[in-house]
Amino acid sequence: MRFSDRISRMDTSAVRNVLALTAKPDIISFAGGLPAPESFPLEALRKASDKVYLTKGTAALQYGPSKGFQPLREKLARRHQAQGIACAADNILIVSGSQQGLDLAGKVFLEPGDLVICENPTYLAALTVFRSYGCTILPIETDADGMIPEDLERKLAENPDAKLMYVIPTFQNPTGKTWSLARRKAVLALAEQYGVPILEDDPYGALRYEGEPVPSLKSMDTTGIVTYMGSFSKVLSPGIRLGWLIAAPELLDKYASAKECTDLQASTISQMVVDTYLEDNDLDANIRHLNDLYRGRRDRMLSMLASEFPTDAAWTHPCGGLFLWVTLSEGIDTTALMPAMTANKVAYIPGMSFFANENVRNCLRLNFSNATDQQITQGMRIMGKLFREAG
Amino acid sequence: MRFSDRISRMDTSAVRNVLALTAKPDIISFAGGLPAPESFPLEALRKASDKVYLTKGTAALQYGPSKGFQPLREKLARRHQAQGIACAADNILIVSGSQQGLDLAGKVFLEPGDLVICENPTYLAALTVFRSYGCTILPIETDADGMIPEDLERKLAENPDAKLMYVIPTFQNPTGKTWSLARRKAVLALAEQYGVPILEDDPYGALRYEGEPVPSLKSMDTTGIVTYMGSFSKVLSPGIRLGWLIAAPELLDKYASAKECTDLQASTISQMVVDTYLEDNDLDANIRHLNDLYRGRRDRMLSMLASEFPTDAAWTHPCGGLFLWVTLSEGIDTTALMPAMTANKVAYIPGMSFFANENVRNCLRLNFSNATDQQITQGMRIMGKLFREAG
Repeated sequence: MRFSDRISRMDTSAVRNVLALTAKPDIISFAGGLPAPESFPLEALRKASDKVYLTKGTAALQYGPSKGFQPLREKLARRHQAQGIACAADNILIVSGSQQGLDLAGKVFLEPGDLVICENPTYLAALTVFRSYGCTILPIETDADGMIPEDLERKLAENPDAKLMYVIPTFQNPTGKTWSLARRKAVLALAEQYGVPILEDDPYGALRYEGEPVPSLKSMDTTGIVTYMGSFSKVLSPGIRLGWLIAAPELLDKYASAKECTDLQASTISQMVVDTYLEDNDLDANIRHLNDLYRGRRDRMLSMLASEFPTDAAWTHPCGGLFLWVTLSEGIDTTALMPAMTANKVAYIPGMSFFANENVRNCLRLNFSNATDQQITQGMRIMGKLFREAG
Repeated sequence: MRFSDRISRMDTSAVRNVLALTAKPDIISFAGGLPAPESFPLEALRKASDKVYLTKGTAALQYGPSKGFQPLREKLARRHQAQGIACAADNILIVSGSQQGLDLAGKVFLEPGDLVICENPTYLAALTVFRSYGCTILPIETDADGMIPEDLERKLAENPDAKLMYVIPTFQNPTGKTWSLARRKAVLALAEQYGVPILEDDPYGALRYEGEPVPSLKSMDTTGIVTYMGSFSKVLSPGIRLGWLIAAPELLDKYASAKECTDLQASTISQMVVDTYLEDNDLDANIRHLNDLYRGRRDRMLSMLASEFPTDAAWTHPCGGLFLWVTLSEGIDTTALMPAMTANKVAYIPGMSFFANENVRNCLRLNFSNATDQQITQGMRIMGKLFREAG
């Protein structure tokens, strides 16, 4: 059998192996990006599900519109209007989790050989998707305030035909950083100047533990250059596999055609269950509860970093989201140390997976949402000791 | 904005417009491929759903394995073993409806310029998917017994580098035809001889209204050349969006990587609900009930064809599935007649949509699963009159 070139670029086994290893119950894993299961509104979703079966009947089990269940699209539009994005239901496409948004953007925009601009470092599964479309990644340097406009401008001037820009401006994956308003405006202006569409990934935006929200790029988008990707995975349930795209109607039609060719539509019943949940419950109250839980876990992890990690280590202070990012001294190889870590029943994702073109060996991503305070205390002690011994 | 070449080939608006038009409640539509909603086991699925929430708890709402929920994979493997396919859970990938199987096959196998072998005519959305991958369709002639091996052999000899073969051997879409055993063996042998992987789409196989089952290509596959696609859409619920692929483990790993890059995994909770439904209910009893319902509708449509359609019309006699196929006299243009049909509150899909390269204007596909006997009687009378007037 002859396979596509594409499939060799889709190899996800390295990270899958780490995650499989760390799924063992005796491992304290800071590797994945899982929300805390105890945060899921199980009983409210159970009630919503039962209500859908009883009130919607067989319509819940039938095919539905490819763009999504209309009442859910309307609720999402109202929610985002309140957050400053001028949108209506016509701007919303329901997708099967926001990972699908990456693939649909690939289908809509990307040709082999295209350049895709990303933050350096960035979400590793996005790199895999863009590479699967035969694209080259153009990484832009970042600092504590986000993507550095001067680096973006220089690289855009050298590569004015860049095809797409993928960014996570709020509680970024893997670093946990949030772009300042000034940076957002500068990057948006450059994208407009060069005509490069932006894919703004915002799965964590609602998970803010301190400080004030910063406007999304989409909320400042007056030309329709930004596609916004939202998700229920981190605020409600990832297992239900629902996210959404916001885009100008003509662009949204292209995403919808791609969605239809990919899997016809998102699950009718899952959409109705989430719609009913939103109707009968206060999602924001659930998010506040979640934020209280995650703030404590973040603080515990920050305090353990200070007490247990090598004194020359540096780390980010995320104001929200699921991750923080640790930079160790140059000599420490976080990839090479993984076997020792898992042998000692702790795990993280080595930083090098998140860099497109560089072999950065001394960083790691830590997830704090899916471990109890006790696990964080114990796991960080073990990890800190191993890093101190390696340094 | 510059878009991919691909997106212009993904235009699904023609058929979407027909389906949107025919979704109006006063239209008697034989256009779609919807199962009868009154056939959905609503109460059994409601109970299964509630049980999942109560017994699986938050695990039902969390991320799950990319290949699918293990107990469901095991049940599907056992089901197919009983139907003669040698397989285990390791051979099964759960997908978000079997439409996704087409896209994943595209990702795994297809490069721009590749040739994809299909029956002539074939499922129109498959044509769109293969074209979206930049492929050319190589249509093979069919008769009442299925794909004609002589035509396949001749075209394979001319195009030995054909990359993939897509077939629907049982209750084919759009014709309702079922391949004979001899044809299946001959096509499989030719695929093996030329090393062309087969994608066997079998969403309707269980919906048999008369005659004996014919073995699937996959059940006779000794070299791992066949990927089998199954679906819950026509036997349980299409709104739940679950299907599966069966393939050799190394090939399945490639599909799984493609699935992971596309949308990570199928819905955890939906998989658990279907698994629990299968555990607590007899799916085959539901299918028998469905077959009794659909047999009656098919028979009603066949009898109305005989009494109402032009005397020179010909049609297939499907032994199962959802569709039958009508060929009218050469002068009748089923595409041009659509506005008159919808103005008179009836609808079908014009036959030309199902042909890859030919402009065949005098055929139509009729769906009989989603209309009551009364609607079939009334709709076929209106349609027959308009065709007689046009002839």
